[in-house]
Amino acid sequence: MSISKLDLRFESQIQHRIDQKTKPVGALGQLELLAKKLALLQSQNAESPIEKITINKPTAVVFAADHGIAEQGVSIAPSAVTRQMVLNFIQGGAAINCFCKVNNIALKVVDAGIIEPIEGSYPSFESRRLGAGTHNLAQQAAMSPDQVELGLKHGSEVVEELVEQGCNLLILGEMGIGNTSSASAMLAAFTHEELSICVGSGTGITDEQKARKVELIDRALQRFDSQDAKTVLSEVGGFEIVQMTGAILAAAKAGIAVLVDGFIVTTAALAACHVEPAVRDYLIFSHQSEEAGHKLLLADLQGLPLLNLELRLGEGTGAALALPLLHAAACFYNEMASFESAGVTV
Amino acid sequence: MSISKLDLRFESQIQHRIDQKTKPVGALGQLELLAKKLALLQSQNAESPIEKITINKPTAVVFAADHGIAEQGVSIAPSAVTRQMVLNFIQGGAAINCFCKVNNIALKVVDAGIIEPIEGSYPSFESRRLGAGTHNLAQQAAMSPDQVELGLKHGSEVVEELVEQGCNLLILGEMGIGNTSSASAMLAAFTHEELSICVGSGTGITDEQKARKVELIDRALQRFDSQDAKTVLSEVGGFEIVQMTGAILAAAKAGIAVLVDGFIVTTAALAACHVEPAVRDYLIFSHQSEEAGHKLLLADLQGLPLLNLELRLGEGTGAALALPLLHAAACFYNEMASFESAGVTV
Repeated sequence: MSISKLDLRFESQIQHRIDQKTKPVGALGQLELLAKKLALLQSQNAESPIEKITINKPTAVVFAADHGIAEQGVSIAPSAVTRQMVLNFIQGGAAINCFCKVNNIALKVVDAGIIEPIEGSYPSFESRRLGAGTHNLAQQAAMSPDQVELGLKHGSEVVEELVEQGCNLLILGEMGIGNTSSASAMLAAFTHEELSICVGSGTGITDEQKARKVELIDRALQRFDSQDAKTVLSEVGGFEIVQMTGAILAAAKAGIAVLVDGFIVTTAALAACHVEPAVRDYLIFSHQSEEAGHKLLLADLQGLPLLNLELRLGEGTGAALALPLLHAAACFYNEMASFESAGVTV
Repeated sequence: MSISKLDLRFESQIQHRIDQKTKPVGALGQLELLAKKLALLQSQNAESPIEKITINKPTAVVFAADHGIAEQGVSIAPSAVTRQMVLNFIQGGAAINCFCKVNNIALKVVDAGIIEPIEGSYPSFESRRLGAGTHNLAQQAAMSPDQVELGLKHGSEVVEELVEQGCNLLILGEMGIGNTSSASAMLAAFTHEELSICVGSGTGITDEQKARKVELIDRALQRFDSQDAKTVLSEVGGFEIVQMTGAILAAAKAGIAVLVDGFIVTTAALAACHVEPAVRDYLIFSHQSEEAGHKLLLADLQGLPLLNLELRLGEGTGAALALPLLHAAACFYNEMASFESAGVTV
């Protein structure tokens, strides 16, 4: 896997260009950082900084899978809801469908291992099953090392195909009843933060359920002490999380930006950074989720989220909502007049 | 002027509809509040809650004017820049042009009273001059009571025309070197907050300039003690601010939502609420500006901004950037499946 850190040789030229736009220096705040990042990213193989940032075929891929731990009542909904929601995605009825529609984002849904497979074939649906849900991570490793390898490969292939088709911006989302348990366990394993602050309320469990969730995850963490990404994924990961990790690695390898959604996707991003730290340079953080652990993750990754709308849905919804800000950053970088061209005196 | 508070008779029905969407209750955070507000607003004259939120011909109107106080070095740029930026808007080179373009927003520019008029006619440019810049508010009333009345009328007419053409969402922006002085003075007059916390750094002045700005505004505030909107506008307002106040009043009267930008536009919104408190129900706050006084204004108006991107540019840029969130809220309200329609078990 060859992923390079961003080469910063054009940084000052890009910053100068942004500073010459007809506005006070820095007045566009985070949008300026965004434009700079996209311009740097897209200038990697160029001989001079690019003139135009492009956002081609932005695509949201929602990976879905089930989790053995869901049997133990750590979620507000039963595992059956994962499959029902996948059908909802396919039929166009979910929140992510709406946000992709209004923001012109292509949507792909991947079954990474839900309990009961979807029959029939649908455009924009792909079956890349690693099994019928993970094992219960409180009792044993969630998946085998072979499943980890296969999951990374699946995620990678999904992205390689998209890149071949011209996509240069990857949006990730997920669906999986029980997956905040898996993500909280991964967060605790990677960062050694107190488990009680890594575990949140998911989509709305009671304090009692939350205490149980902490106890079950704690059992899993007793089994191993490692920050090796593949070990962590095998012990406490999820099929959708491992595939997203592979997807992020492939996107960084292809040199395209990844617009990261909330808690679960950011956990996959953290895993990818543990595989290859240079991945961090390709990540854009779309929003601050309401899920407790997400703040810790963003702090660990030094990520500054674009939105803070108190979302706690997943599916890639926060990332899809943030895309227009990337278009805005690209447009001002590409088209806004300079003081000189507009005849504005500083 | 007849502006009614929003009738809340459909509130629980609208909330129920949102809660039946295929997502945990409340999981879309601020977007749910936004959808509810738009649905309530558009159901005012209906016999049942509307089925579809519509956003028709969203239009940004940028009001520009000059300020006598700018002579006194309270800004990073000379007054000449106001006119230069108006030409930049007309030629399509400013940040607001870019953001309107990417978000499909029509743009109109109004000369409310810049020093030197623009010659020639341009589509989407309108001349509604109240004078060649206001008087220096540190020395005398910024404008006469007649200018206030005429300004309110101009702003109102601009919006009435847009509403006639089918626009049902008003986005406001402004340009005027020196206008943060005027806005800070209005904020202090309306709220009686300490002047030193009402005054910010504008687009980037030094601490010395800021101390001078406070001193000059303080002189103006010595002249009067009133929360009457027309008195405040006459004493320390700006030609663009009074026209925006008229525009906001007209939008509320027509029953359409106003997407409020940063510090200056929010000051106009506060003035409009002092004319007629029911106006508050028609306001949507797009972003939290970096300008110090904006937090005070939002607190006073109990406004929850959608974005916080550290913007401090004005022009309506924050509001234009927030529009996609309104489209997203409308789309999920209109099109997202319910638990029942999607066959998802709760």
